Amino acid sequence: MPPPGNGPGHDWAVESAGPPWLESALGLLGAGESEEGSRLARQLAFLLELDKAKQVLRRTYVTDGSRRENDAEHMWHATLAALVLAEHAGEAVEPTRLALMLAVHDVVEIDAGDTFIYDEAARADKVAREQQAAERIFGLLPEDQGKLFSSLWEEFEERATPTAKMAAAIDRLLPLLMNRAVEGRTWREHNITAGQVLAVNAHINEGSPRLWELARTVLEGAVEEGVLEA
Amino acid sequence: MPPPGNGPGHDWAVESAGPPWLESALGLLGAGESEEGSRLARQLAFLLELDKAKQVLRRTYVTDGSRRENDAEHMWHATLAALVLAEHAGEAVEPTRLALMLAVHDVVEIDAGDTFIYDEAARADKVAREQQAAERIFGLLPEDQGKLFSSLWEEFEERATPTAKMAAAIDRLLPLLMNRAVEGRTWREHNITAGQVLAVNAHINEGSPRLWELARTVLEGAVEEGVLEA
Repeated sequence: MPPPGNGPGHDWAVESAGPPWLESALGLLGAGESEEGSRLARQLAFLLELDKAKQVLRRTYVTDGSRRENDAEHMWHATLAALVLAEHAGEAVEPTRLALMLAVHDVVEIDAGDTFIYDEAARADKVAREQQAAERIFGLLPEDQGKLFSSLWEEFEERATPTAKMAAAIDRLLPLLMNRAVEGRTWREHNITAGQVLAVNAHINEGSPRLWELARTVLEGAVEEGVLEA
Repeated sequence: MPPPGNGPGHDWAVESAGPPWLESALGLLGAGESEEGSRLARQLAFLLELDKAKQVLRRTYVTDGSRRENDAEHMWHATLAALVLAEHAGEAVEPTRLALMLAVHDVVEIDAGDTFIYDEAARADKVAREQQAAERIFGLLPEDQGKLFSSLWEEFEERATPTAKMAAAIDRLLPLLMNRAVEGRTWREHNITAGQVLAVNAHINEGSPRLWELARTVLEGAVEEGVLEA
């Protein structure tokens, strides 16, 4: 077999920024010499990069309380929640786009990190940090796919369409339920009061009045049982 | 407020099998008295149950080698891989169904556990264990949604349609690449040879000859560099 094609003449390798063993395999397949091969190189570099979302920890605990949840787990859980809960949206939504939006919504945190929703200082520069992250990470993909992922993420962030509003509602409802399931552990660790939880999660109502009614009732019960400060 | 409705008259509570705080909140919302409320109760019980997939460990390591990957992370990674790699399928596939199929494909492992693909004894009763798991877990959902999830999972398992064949290819390609990224750690831990890896993963070819060509080239490189036994 010819030696792996890692020389400076291989632009696809520079673009893909994949590990040496992957560049080597793609070189043997002639990835630098066809559009299709060049796309595959970029796609695989992106997929390996995504693995890092498994290391971005959120404040939420998994419901057996053993450890904190990570972004990959959260995006998966939210994707399935979209399929199941779409019917409770206040306005008509596109269920498939809702699911895919949630499958992608926190990828930027690979670079930007998870911003705790009760940390107002960190939230101040969140937009700039995440925009830069989106450009780098979605920029690993072939241009058309990068644009598709960016459009899903931007629609989610702008929260202007019924589908994006419902995505935001699901993104907030899940950790609220999970936190209740572990006796309000994150709230208690950070001295969060019911008033703060209600204020930060109120936009669940924009996506789904029904889910917001549920969230409020769960929170009232949490206060009554002393797992959330009034 | 009236007391939580946990009495034996509340059939929805029996069906949903949710935790007491959730049953209580749903009772206050009158979930037992409307079809919509009853659906929500079952949907939320299902979503809380899904959290357990975050505790089902696979043999694959995350690519920084720090720990083993879990099913929730893997299903998320595979969902995004579907969106990115669908174009490399050997036959025309439905990209959205491909993504959703992969978002759901290992949910049954909450009950049935992860079956190591090189463990032939465990594979013998895999079908029966997973069928029972599907009935219980998808059975938590309202019937129409349970059927939708079951149909995605069954199509994946039967591997008869082009979409299911491509899903199987992605399901196998990802751990192969991840394992290569950590110098073949799972292969080495279990004394797996290149012949076994090729045999177990050969059906990648049914979904995507192009991805199978890539996989074989990566494996040849792994043998050459001594991270996989010939």
